[in-house]
Amino acid sequence: MIQPHGISSIQDKELFLKNRSTLITDVLLPNKKQVDIWYDDTGIIRAVGPEVAKEHRSEADITLDGSGTLAIPGLVNTHTHGAMTLLRGYADDMHLQQWLSEKIWPLEAHLTGDHVYWGTKLACLEMIKSGTVAFNDMYFFMKDAARAVDESKIRAVLSHGIITFGNEEKFETELKATDDVVHYVRSLHSPLITSAIGPHAPYTVPPDHLSICAEYGHKEKILLHTHLAETKQEVDDCQKTYGMTPTALLDKAGCLSDRTVAAHGCWLSEDDCRLLGERGSHIAHNPVSNMKLATGRAMPYHWLSDKGVNVSLGTDGCSSNNNLDMLEEMKIAAICQKFFWNLDTLLPAAEVLSMATSCGAKALGYAGGEIKEGMPADILLVSLHCPSMIPLHNPVSNIAYSADGGAVDTTICNGRILMRNRYVPDENEIIKGASSSADDLLNRAGIMA
Amino acid sequence: MIQPHGISSIQDKELFLKNRSTLITDVLLPNKKQVDIWYDDTGIIRAVGPEVAKEHRSEADITLDGSGTLAIPGLVNTHTHGAMTLLRGYADDMHLQQWLSEKIWPLEAHLTGDHVYWGTKLACLEMIKSGTVAFNDMYFFMKDAARAVDESKIRAVLSHGIITFGNEEKFETELKATDDVVHYVRSLHSPLITSAIGPHAPYTVPPDHLSICAEYGHKEKILLHTHLAETKQEVDDCQKTYGMTPTALLDKAGCLSDRTVAAHGCWLSEDDCRLLGERGSHIAHNPVSNMKLATGRAMPYHWLSDKGVNVSLGTDGCSSNNNLDMLEEMKIAAICQKFFWNLDTLLPAAEVLSMATSCGAKALGYAGGEIKEGMPADILLVSLHCPSMIPLHNPVSNIAYSADGGAVDTTICNGRILMRNRYVPDENEIIKGASSSADDLLNRAGIMA
Repeated sequence: MIQPHGISSIQDKELFLKNRSTLITDVLLPNKKQVDIWYDDTGIIRAVGPEVAKEHRSEADITLDGSGTLAIPGLVNTHTHGAMTLLRGYADDMHLQQWLSEKIWPLEAHLTGDHVYWGTKLACLEMIKSGTVAFNDMYFFMKDAARAVDESKIRAVLSHGIITFGNEEKFETELKATDDVVHYVRSLHSPLITSAIGPHAPYTVPPDHLSICAEYGHKEKILLHTHLAETKQEVDDCQKTYGMTPTALLDKAGCLSDRTVAAHGCWLSEDDCRLLGERGSHIAHNPVSNMKLATGRAMPYHWLSDKGVNVSLGTDGCSSNNNLDMLEEMKIAAICQKFFWNLDTLLPAAEVLSMATSCGAKALGYAGGEIKEGMPADILLVSLHCPSMIPLHNPVSNIAYSADGGAVDTTICNGRILMRNRYVPDENEIIKGASSSADDLLNRAGIMA
Repeated sequence: MIQPHGISSIQDKELFLKNRSTLITDVLLPNKKQVDIWYDDTGIIRAVGPEVAKEHRSEADITLDGSGTLAIPGLVNTHTHGAMTLLRGYADDMHLQQWLSEKIWPLEAHLTGDHVYWGTKLACLEMIKSGTVAFNDMYFFMKDAARAVDESKIRAVLSHGIITFGNEEKFETELKATDDVVHYVRSLHSPLITSAIGPHAPYTVPPDHLSICAEYGHKEKILLHTHLAETKQEVDDCQKTYGMTPTALLDKAGCLSDRTVAAHGCWLSEDDCRLLGERGSHIAHNPVSNMKLATGRAMPYHWLSDKGVNVSLGTDGCSSNNNLDMLEEMKIAAICQKFFWNLDTLLPAAEVLSMATSCGAKALGYAGGEIKEGMPADILLVSLHCPSMIPLHNPVSNIAYSADGGAVDTTICNGRILMRNRYVPDENEIIKGASSSADDLLNRAGIMA
């Protein structure tokens, strides 16, 4: 790759090893102002402005030349199943039930902790390479996922996906698995990783189990991560069985608070949106997955924003996307809202960028998603030298509608440099390990690769 | 950028200068077979198979190491307005009429041939970098566009966009401009560039003018490129004024033949689709533009394919997309069809890849879009080393749903290598020239950059 913006050496592995006080010079902000950014070795941004290099050069251990790049906040993926990268492309274009029962579940039955470790490593690599610095994950073998995330040095909220269908024994096992994750994550003493309780959905976890999940989350002061109103069937069934919407059911079980992140919300009613707003809960929008799985309706963004609900963005897992590229997700979110709700002004570029950054950080419960003093240094340097970023009439529009993940040159999370000039130190090892792990999974399932 | 698949030198500018007999070794095909590909210095593929390197090495002037890459046919963008890359991000998220009358048209009024030259150069660069080797273009100053395309060495069908609203004088000027393009393109003696007649749409060109356009196209044996049934308004107005659909109107004017490429088709009726099938006409699907501009309906792919209509893919111009990335367009086409028509099996990965390759070549009237003996060497080598291509359960699915334009490592058009290891020889000059040209356009329009 050509090096258009004066990066000296990509081989300086030292760059990636630890947090150091760092000066980024001559970078453009989305408002087209050229500034320097200085953050200290705790990973907190201390100064942003045109004179920062002059004032703080002596305090910085290293300097990154930011000329020819645009600085935007690191992206936040608020709903995914990271390890499902191992299933990328394994089954597509099928009817949902057939897809699940004939393809996904039989393969998942053979999953081990090692597969989840490598799947999560691959997911983190893909996220770093496309500018995502934090994600909200729900899957199985989450201690192995935690190990992978901890090595990858990005932020994550990790939950064991709880599915009980009313079975008490299963519920006990699931709660035990959750408890294990919560304690394991605490034992890591990482400022970047937290845990959540993950009751899968109101249609897979009955109200009494939901209530216990809510209490557990409250007691442990952790997030509650769930799926909500993804399909019409789910809403209709809930109305038939419980005489209320899934949202009302979650609320009755005590599951809606400002520490709740519910994914999808395609079939929310206006009343549901009002209730979510009153509870301060967050909705993670997953437009690609919703479109691919033909949910039939786009999340009602206009109602949610009217009612003051914080709406963030997610990719869902790689079985229904099939990538983790949040730049692509932003574009599809913005055009899907316009298309489905038939309003060409809905979800403009600046709002979808907030959705993928500050709204995401808010949903996951940490201060972040903005480049300003006092915020963590979660920063992307996006190349202004890609054809898709030319011309630069409107940097925010180019980010939302034109750039793809490959335009991200540098990814910094909490002050640590994770990618520079598109180089990630352990990329080759991860690609090799994840490829082998995917082969191993197929072998175990008796499928020829 | 790391060089994972053994490319020796990206600085070998010789590689790009002329057509040479070329052997590509150890490349994977979408069916997961590993082969070598040999094409001669006329740009025609002569052999594809596992023993080709052994048999033809002595006949090849150069060898490209294809290990670690997937070979797919070059992509074909069958509807765009190339020079509108200069307007990328200039205005978004507005109501259509306000967007046109307050933003796009006032700026376009200041366009010169030089802007179109640089806009088209930028468009060609962006296409080469994201794997597109042919495009169907409609805009103004098309001799300048032709100059840019000729330098870029990709395929194009160029048409001057004819808008008359019934004004005879305007029509005469537009026909003269078309005639100029047709003769200029012929004078280039390029095997890659042809021209078309471009009556903009049935609502901007009345039936008598459409008839004359059809006759002109027939006489010159060139394509007819138009817009069709993009909005409901257009269909309703046509019914009210002429008592028939825009498709029937085009047919009555003699505009529907197997040399017709009509863009959009969102609001086609089932009868329209049957008529298009009978005439052998081609529909260019532009899902991103349709979604962004909130057309309210997705092109009825199931009806069109039922009636045997060849459906190809396009990006539309950068004002309504805002990029020219056909890999992204494939994904959005596949998920948009599933979503809008509420059918999760509609437009599967293999069909959308054909739509973007062989169906595109068919629409533009040349043999191509397949990697096999006798076909032109329009070949992409896609890196299998990107996280988004791992694991490789299904190469076609990864291409359709996961990869973005940045995964394309090498772009070859008609045997000429245009990009290798993501290096395009004149990238810097084009980016500089196009950026200056965009600034100049704003200056002329009295807008501060």
